[in-house]
Amino acid sequence: MEFTVQQIADLLQGKVDGDNTVKVSTLAKIEEAQKGALAFLSNLKYESFLYSTEASAVIVASNLELKKPVSATLIRVNDPYSSFSTLLQYYQTALIASKTGVEDPCFIGQGSQIGENHYRGAFSYIGANCKIGDNVRIFPQVYIGDNVTIGDNTTIFAGVKLYTNTVVGSNCTIHSGAVLGSDGFGWAPQADGTYKAVPQIGNVVLEDDISIGANTTIDCATMGSTIIRQGTKIDNLVQIAHNVEVGAHTVVASQSGISGSSKVGNYCVIAGQVGIVGHITIADKTTVGAQSGVSKSVKEQGTIIQGSPAFDYKQNLRAMTVFRKLPELQRELEMLKERV
Amino acid sequence: MEFTVQQIADLLQGKVDGDNTVKVSTLAKIEEAQKGALAFLSNLKYESFLYSTEASAVIVASNLELKKPVSATLIRVNDPYSSFSTLLQYYQTALIASKTGVEDPCFIGQGSQIGENHYRGAFSYIGANCKIGDNVRIFPQVYIGDNVTIGDNTTIFAGVKLYTNTVVGSNCTIHSGAVLGSDGFGWAPQADGTYKAVPQIGNVVLEDDISIGANTTIDCATMGSTIIRQGTKIDNLVQIAHNVEVGAHTVVASQSGISGSSKVGNYCVIAGQVGIVGHITIADKTTVGAQSGVSKSVKEQGTIIQGSPAFDYKQNLRAMTVFRKLPELQRELEMLKERV
Amino acid sequence: MEFTVQQIADLLQGKVDGDNTVKVSTLAKIEEAQKGALAFLSNLKYESFLYSTEASAVIVASNLELKKPVSATLIRVNDPYSSFSTLLQYYQTALIASKTGVEDPCFIGQGSQIGENHYRGAFSYIGANCKIGDNVRIFPQVYIGDNVTIGDNTTIFAGVKLYTNTVVGSNCTIHSGAVLGSDGFGWAPQADGTYKAVPQIGNVVLEDDISIGANTTIDCATMGSTIIRQGTKIDNLVQIAHNVEVGAHTVVASQSGISGSSKVGNYCVIAGQVGIVGHITIADKTTVGAQSGVSKSVKEQGTIIQGSPAFDYKQNLRAMTVFRKLPELQRELEMLKERV
Repeated sequence: MEFTVQQIADLLQGKVDGDNTVKVSTLAKIEEAQKGALAFLSNLKYESFLYSTEASAVIVASNLELKKPVSATLIRVNDPYSSFSTLLQYYQTALIASKTGVEDPCFIGQGSQIGENHYRGAFSYIGANCKIGDNVRIFPQVYIGDNVTIGDNTTIFAGVKLYTNTVVGSNCTIHSGAVLGSDGFGWAPQADGTYKAVPQIGNVVLEDDISIGANTTIDCATMGSTIIRQGTKIDNLVQIAHNVEVGAHTVVASQSGISGSSKVGNYCVIAGQVGIVGHITIADKTTVGAQSGVSKSVKEQGTIIQGSPAFDYKQNLRAMTVFRKLPELQRELEMLKERV
Repeated sequence: MEFTVQQIADLLQGKVDGDNTVKVSTLAKIEEAQKGALAFLSNLKYESFLYSTEASAVIVASNLELKKPVSATLIRVNDPYSSFSTLLQYYQTALIASKTGVEDPCFIGQGSQIGENHYRGAFSYIGANCKIGDNVRIFPQVYIGDNVTIGDNTTIFAGVKLYTNTVVGSNCTIHSGAVLGSDGFGWAPQADGTYKAVPQIGNVVLEDDISIGANTTIDCATMGSTIIRQGTKIDNLVQIAHNVEVGAHTVVASQSGISGSSKVGNYCVIAGQVGIVGHITIADKTTVGAQSGVSKSVKEQGTIIQGSPAFDYKQNLRAMTVFRKLPELQRELEMLKERV
Repeated sequence: MEFTVQQIADLLQGKVDGDNTVKVSTLAKIEEAQKGALAFLSNLKYESFLYSTEASAVIVASNLELKKPVSATLIRVNDPYSSFSTLLQYYQTALIASKTGVEDPCFIGQGSQIGENHYRGAFSYIGANCKIGDNVRIFPQVYIGDNVTIGDNTTIFAGVKLYTNTVVGSNCTIHSGAVLGSDGFGWAPQADGTYKAVPQIGNVVLEDDISIGANTTIDCATMGSTIIRQGTKIDNLVQIAHNVEVGAHTVVASQSGISGSSKVGNYCVIAGQVGIVGHITIADKTTVGAQSGVSKSVKEQGTIIQGSPAFDYKQNLRAMTVFRKLPELQRELEMLKERV
């Protein structure tokens, strides 16, 4: 994709300052940009890069006064940051939307329907009786089991696996290697010390506007559904166990795990490598610090916790500060004992 | 799959109380059940739901006396919980067993044999000289390298990768995205600070009745075998390094990792996000608490440990209790020092 | 692959002691070797196994004097360990190199070029405008998006996913299930508590001689590149976030995670299950102990840290020693208070 600076200025309702026939084909930071790239200058802390950048064009503020000559063509707009963000979004959307049609071979089972303007990559597999909406992109080597439902405008990257009966909403993105609907880890201990499988016949439900990271796993419910509510974003390598419910507009960072039947509230922030035990409830707007282990329910909204096991993060911080000095503390105590 | 209540009652040797022509097509919890679902009532704590449920049918005890009218058809049996479990197992088994035949295209290398009544999904790959038993289900996009052996009645879900020479027993289940037989992480440091690969030519052996979770990774041995013994259940996103041996009837929860050459005993319980260092031995019936780091061998059977590094869980619990109060402890010590 | 003992002795420039027509087809440890295997004896601690081994042949030192009769044929060389390592490498290289040609079906997009002597497994997918070097092995079900570059002699195992614009150097190995180039986890919080995606248009760059473990995920940069420098080895299930840079000749063990924009130096050792927060810098030759949480930059080369949060490992070790005795410490303090 190559554009003239004039085309981009028109799109952004900006004015060109310099050669408007210059062509750009990528977006870059002003300090890293090469020939052919379009950069932007918003924070004047970076102004010195404007005079040395190799970018072919730079988006700047309408009222910016130049202190030195600039080799790049300038596009002057009211809000350079916002204009650049707009371009970034056009770019990413265009990349995905450019994928259309059906590559050969791919597999689709009996009774499955798929909406308009879709992409199905080679070696993708759709089972029987699936209902898939409009503008859905299914990349190569995706597996979609029987009776799966997928809403409009959802993108499923290469190699995602959706087990039978999974429900995915609209405007969702699922990254490569994610697995939705694998059996919950339910094992009934027998008298002889062996384990018998507890059948797992439920499913996974993603509501709308959800993002699932690469190689994340979400188990199906024993019965009923493991549910991720609207707008929630889940990072890579996260584990969501059977019958978990993650509320709306919550973020869960990489390598965290939520054990069976726990309920995480809305607008929560779960940092990386956190573990949450089973059968507990986390209140709305809770923040859990990285590597924490949440061993009991959080009842009050807006709570911030840290540690393994986790408790109030300020209290944890103070305890950790003393922890480092424990050898001195012990020595002082010994000295006191001798004196007394 | 749709059944009349009478068909189900016959299967369970129960009696129908109500309309025996009502049809059900799914199983659900009594508090969540909708029309068309069959639920059960075992624990009388949930009895109130019996009078309000939308389930089409409910399995209840033979001797249950109704306190109010019930809209659902009842199936009366001796042990409702056990009867319902039986149905759940029928349901799950039927789902898997319904998959038979060979979808097109799929790949099978020279000299490979596969037993009766199998399923091979589209885009599945079987290398050369493999020996695969009867009633094996190989879902779409599974990769099976050369010289792999798989026992009877094993199910391998979509996208599993089995490297060359892997051995899988009978009655095993391997969930999507699991990787067995990738190279062990063996690197010989060189004089100049770089690393040279230690060749990894061993394999992975799963005995019978084993379950491997989604996106779990098990590395091949440097030489010989990385072994998972009979009946052991491994959850999602678990890492098992080269030359590890996990004993029989042990459970390993999600996101735990076992480092190279360590041996975990039989009947152990390894909770989630546990790390076990290399070259140690964990005695039979050991329990390791969540997020623990096991840094040395556990010699006594039945030991319970917790913490990072892990030690006796009761001692850890008491230490953690004091840990939270460290700031106060420090203050008290300061006050004492001033007084003395 | 079957060889006579004489063929192997010739390769190693060794002398045969016994029947030189004996055939071997695998390599094994002397204490585990079966008929048909070739073992070695280097450390004389293991000499007793020489007299009882079932190996068909054993590599021993030129000057070894036998104390008892040996059933295996011996191959006498100057340095048995080094000779055996050479064979291991031949073996592993031969296994990979034996894969050549193009299996059917596989997909290659318009404008993509691939060098000589390559292997492309069935159901592998190569997008448009890719440049792939010589001697590259692409196993079944690999996905390579558009505009991807791959250097010579690189092996990509079954099911790896490389998003559009990924760059992989020469002599790299990427294990099954690894995902390179998935979107960075960048979300701009909105006034109403929801999140808007920050477009992620950068890529992932692996330099030469890199190994990536099974099911590891490396996100693309927001803009620019997430970079892994030459010779670095990354284990299974590791998470590398957007805009991270991992230096040369560094090892990162399983299940560790590096958050966005952090820079890890050269010659570092990151043990298993470590978490590194975003936007920090780790000096060259830093060692981070297992399960540590690195919350701030490490400025001095050769630092060794441990703990969550991590600090000097010796200090941490001493603090952990006191931590275990906290209940006694508290009791002693109580007693002192009473006395004073």
